[in-house]
Amino acid sequence: MIRFENDYAEGAHPKILEMLTKTNAEQTPGYGMDAYCERAREIIRGLCKNERAGVHFLVGGTQANAAVISAGLRPYQGVVSPDTGHIAVHETGAVEAYGHKVLTIPSLNGKITAGQVEEMCRAHLADNSREHTVQPGMVYISQATELGTLYSREELTALSSVCRRYGLYLFVDGARLGYAVADRGCGLGFADIAALCDVFYIGGTKLGALFGEAVVITNEALDRDFRYIIKQHGGMLAKGRLLGLQFCALLEDGLYLELAGHAVSQALRIRDAFAAKGFEFICDSPTNQQFPILPDAAAEKLSKKYAYSHWTKTDETHSVVRFCTSWATKPSDVDELIGDIAAL
Amino acid sequence: MIRFENDYAEGAHPKILEMLTKTNAEQTPGYGMDAYCERAREIIRGLCKNERAGVHFLVGGTQANAAVISAGLRPYQGVVSPDTGHIAVHETGAVEAYGHKVLTIPSLNGKITAGQVEEMCRAHLADNSREHTVQPGMVYISQATELGTLYSREELTALSSVCRRYGLYLFVDGARLGYAVADRGCGLGFADIAALCDVFYIGGTKLGALFGEAVVITNEALDRDFRYIIKQHGGMLAKGRLLGLQFCALLEDGLYLELAGHAVSQALRIRDAFAAKGFEFICDSPTNQQFPILPDAAAEKLSKKYAYSHWTKTDETHSVVRFCTSWATKPSDVDELIGDIAAL
Amino acid sequence: MIRFENDYAEGAHPKILEMLTKTNAEQTPGYGMDAYCERAREIIRGLCKNERAGVHFLVGGTQANAAVISAGLRPYQGVVSPDTGHIAVHETGAVEAYGHKVLTIPSLNGKITAGQVEEMCRAHLADNSREHTVQPGMVYISQATELGTLYSREELTALSSVCRRYGLYLFVDGARLGYAVADRGCGLGFADIAALCDVFYIGGTKLGALFGEAVVITNEALDRDFRYIIKQHGGMLAKGRLLGLQFCALLEDGLYLELAGHAVSQALRIRDAFAAKGFEFICDSPTNQQFPILPDAAAEKLSKKYAYSHWTKTDETHSVVRFCTSWATKPSDVDELIGDIAAL
Amino acid sequence: MIRFENDYAEGAHPKILEMLTKTNAEQTPGYGMDAYCERAREIIRGLCKNERAGVHFLVGGTQANAAVISAGLRPYQGVVSPDTGHIAVHETGAVEAYGHKVLTIPSLNGKITAGQVEEMCRAHLADNSREHTVQPGMVYISQATELGTLYSREELTALSSVCRRYGLYLFVDGARLGYAVADRGCGLGFADIAALCDVFYIGGTKLGALFGEAVVITNEALDRDFRYIIKQHGGMLAKGRLLGLQFCALLEDGLYLELAGHAVSQALRIRDAFAAKGFEFICDSPTNQQFPILPDAAAEKLSKKYAYSHWTKTDETHSVVRFCTSWATKPSDVDELIGDIAAL
Repeated sequence: MIRFENDYAEGAHPKILEMLTKTNAEQTPGYGMDAYCERAREIIRGLCKNERAGVHFLVGGTQANAAVISAGLRPYQGVVSPDTGHIAVHETGAVEAYGHKVLTIPSLNGKITAGQVEEMCRAHLADNSREHTVQPGMVYISQATELGTLYSREELTALSSVCRRYGLYLFVDGARLGYAVADRGCGLGFADIAALCDVFYIGGTKLGALFGEAVVITNEALDRDFRYIIKQHGGMLAKGRLLGLQFCALLEDGLYLELAGHAVSQALRIRDAFAAKGFEFICDSPTNQQFPILPDAAAEKLSKKYAYSHWTKTDETHSVVRFCTSWATKPSDVDELIGDIAAL
Repeated sequence: MIRFENDYAEGAHPKILEMLTKTNAEQTPGYGMDAYCERAREIIRGLCKNERAGVHFLVGGTQANAAVISAGLRPYQGVVSPDTGHIAVHETGAVEAYGHKVLTIPSLNGKITAGQVEEMCRAHLADNSREHTVQPGMVYISQATELGTLYSREELTALSSVCRRYGLYLFVDGARLGYAVADRGCGLGFADIAALCDVFYIGGTKLGALFGEAVVITNEALDRDFRYIIKQHGGMLAKGRLLGLQFCALLEDGLYLELAGHAVSQALRIRDAFAAKGFEFICDSPTNQQFPILPDAAAEKLSKKYAYSHWTKTDETHSVVRFCTSWATKPSDVDELIGDIAAL
Repeated sequence: MIRFENDYAEGAHPKILEMLTKTNAEQTPGYGMDAYCERAREIIRGLCKNERAGVHFLVGGTQANAAVISAGLRPYQGVVSPDTGHIAVHETGAVEAYGHKVLTIPSLNGKITAGQVEEMCRAHLADNSREHTVQPGMVYISQATELGTLYSREELTALSSVCRRYGLYLFVDGARLGYAVADRGCGLGFADIAALCDVFYIGGTKLGALFGEAVVITNEALDRDFRYIIKQHGGMLAKGRLLGLQFCALLEDGLYLELAGHAVSQALRIRDAFAAKGFEFICDSPTNQQFPILPDAAAEKLSKKYAYSHWTKTDETHSVVRFCTSWATKPSDVDELIGDIAAL
Repeated sequence: MIRFENDYAEGAHPKILEMLTKTNAEQTPGYGMDAYCERAREIIRGLCKNERAGVHFLVGGTQANAAVISAGLRPYQGVVSPDTGHIAVHETGAVEAYGHKVLTIPSLNGKITAGQVEEMCRAHLADNSREHTVQPGMVYISQATELGTLYSREELTALSSVCRRYGLYLFVDGARLGYAVADRGCGLGFADIAALCDVFYIGGTKLGALFGEAVVITNEALDRDFRYIIKQHGGMLAKGRLLGLQFCALLEDGLYLELAGHAVSQALRIRDAFAAKGFEFICDSPTNQQFPILPDAAAEKLSKKYAYSHWTKTDETHSVVRFCTSWATKPSDVDELIGDIAAL
């Protein structure tokens, strides 16, 4: 079975295991106060062109999301999210477990617009019974989105501007940020994201690390006491250096974007093969996830040899499926898939 | 600087890194559903002599504690803990963040007794205003305790029996369980613990793993839907195999107890050196943490060469300090320390 | 200004104030353990034809909803609600504040169907990633709904049956239950509701009481320790007798349904007047709330003399408005309104 | 049976029922936005000599406490309380249910000192692992305390000053504030309390009202959006005027302090009778609760005719009991009790 199911099927890029092995016997302070974490922080601040950003390392995305959101909201506030947002659908109510409602907005291609956020804020303020409803306090989006799409510079700037006008934090879930930054069309780099939002993270789990997300907080009010929040959320790894080391390995010399670039290239080859065969997609994705709409018979045939995700049915005889590449995807596997697509 | 500060200063036992490296390119399902997790589960069920136990892998102790406690309590119930318990003092209110009060009982040498728990339950039931107070719903203890002491078979059996009589879950925090099981005097092995409590965990972070705690649930009602709880707590590692692999490495051929035995031996050598010099201890610890009471001058002298933890002051000129060994402690470092203690 | 804005604009039915005044000097035990509460419980058990039902008195609806929901759900479970449900939109996230997601279902006329609930449960169970999503644990509906509509015996029976099949609690918010029971067409009385759901309440605040909701729990598992939950939610009134007394006054001799019947009659007169004039309604309501769709000019004209609620705009020149009657509505005021509608 | 069990055994002062009856038919806006609430706010601002204070009416103390505390704390912060504090022992974990730990300080006579609070803050800041512990964010005390004692001007000023120095909110639970203000020795009036703390409340439930606590917030940051918090806590009474009316009745012409004065006088007569007989007290209370230590035989004898509260046993043959007076206590009942005490 050749697997295109997700981007976390393997371990880590070999460089990471090498660094872990090489430094294994060193004794370091715990809880993220070691020299590797400090070095990773400096690298990230450099990439973000923000020397004062708070940088914190957490083990996984659900934890990072819940920590950031509960740090940013007052008790009666909620977090605005696309209805397809990870926090809205795939975290078993982790945000609610900390007391906050997820206020969903209908999304198009996994994205929401500045106009929608503004309308929600305006409607809230115009409502005489607003104290009986949850107040929007933060906007959560993903770059890349759950559907592989990207916010353009214009779109993100508009969202940023609305959030600042209405006093909402803007939070960018970057579990797949590398694939977004790797995209040439989008043109939004780390420093752009850092400048436009209050907090975001650089995802490691889905891009070459064993695990780990680097949360970058550019808004000082939000960064205050954030380490207490991490500890309370069970997110303060005793051997914090494991996180620092991995981000050093990925970011110190461009490996992260190189791996992302590889994954995106392979994904686009798959996209082109489906397109050449005349299949449609639920949306145009320039990143490592592709969502073609296949006749069930064709999907069935491919499934004998390839593992991929079933997404949803579109009608009696067609389904949306997801093919996902990663830093570890072999071009020869993609070659084989392309051949089989052509032969459908 | 020679470090006796804690038991998580290094990376992992080399065997673990080797296994991670060897299996790195394999593709596995995520979230703990892979073959390594399954194998580790089987090994653990075998060690516990309980084929039906639920076994779940979490990244760290604070997370494991909060997950187990919130799985076990109804909203108005609290968890009973020694006043020195980790959940009571060192988890930034993680239990409270999920809505539950920690009901502390004064501890002696880090331990509480069946009698104290019974008295709390009796007093609660006898209180006409009990509905105005938090109902005890679970007892949390650690084996070994925060002070390195152990519950004897008799003590744990009595606690177990009280808990069953009053309908409380019994939860044993085993962040340092290996050091306890390694102790010959205590004589409580994995299967004993499993039989006496409803849930416990086998700690990896502080005993040779990069990270990871294996939660073992022997009470079926508590195990039901526990994976939802893990996910909600941000504890479901995408690359769950990292946890499974580590527990396979540690438990498949006795490495875990071997490493613990090493650490305990070295700790007892340190203990004996302090005792030979006439120093007292805050309590008698048969495990890898030793708490001598030192004149501040002596402590100061040792601190030039050795890192250890300051615990508390006992009077104007004396302090309790902690020396902690681990799987990675070098006997030659202990030799050197022993020499320096003798020379004090 | 003649007010048709809501059903809680006045104080209480005079009989209630008389009883409070008459019993004022009596000394009673606190917290709902007095003889008046006990008598009210007996009356309610009689009306519900269920001698073992738990009956608890809370001050208001938001509190009653949050208490019942948090008593019934495990931490990773959510409560299913129509998207128009009070808990989903008008309680400032009170359910989320206690850790639970509100899982909304698109409603028609304020109602959801057994089929929709079944589909949600089926989809959850069929989802291989279901542990990453919130598990449905309870269904919340209102009788009468936010739009004044009613569940028929057939509809409620079907919902009850689906809930039992999938192990969900069924909770009926009865803030306006009296208006529903008063309706002859519906034919669902207190005992029917009690038999079909696990918990419901008989609302006092919106039907003649100063305040108060009588929560009736027919499912023993849910009733266990419910008084702890009430206290934790700040809902245990020190002078609990105030609640017991009011429900005695309302229920001991049929006053409650008599007042409801009055309100409904007056509402139907208003409905008929709008209908006679050719206006449409957003839905057909047999209870005390009527939602005609008015040209904005007509609405404007009526607003000079009558207070009512603006609901939503339907197009550039029309709006839905709400006229609401109560136990205290004067027929002469309705006469006048009818005349003015006819003259539009 | 003559009752000295508590101060909420009767209904309300007759003036309150009269006002409720007189205004019963009036139609008012809901949720505390009516003219009576507004008038009560103005009266309270006047008494507090603070024209900008936020004034909010809640139904009961547990609710008021939880609302104020969750409004004031960030997620990782706890509220400091005497170990005898109501929130620490008698609210079924309501504070924890909203996610916050209660950090208890050993109390003397129900009180804690500025020095103790300072020591806790200093210790927290000096702790290198402080991010692993709950950060103190607010101090909660009661005036009068659970034991009937009072903070002097000097004591409260010192607490206020420590709180401001360390950035903690100071919150005074005033469920029995009237009895404290009535005391001539203490000399702390409404305006003094208002000036020294950030938030307090004037309790109605235990001093002549049917129910209700008037929360006064003098710190603007804490007051912001407080109505959202009230609604979320289920504390926004639909017929909010019931609260406004009662506080108008109690405060517009001094009735509140007059009733408190009466209760205190009667309590002091009881105190003197016990003292004359040579009985000791657990502490010297100048307010409406008295805690004599009685031989069990004497207590038994009195219990034939008088209801009072058993507090705790002091030795095999003695117990602390509580005699509590209220606005409704009859001097003739006290006369009789005094006679019976003398005859013991």
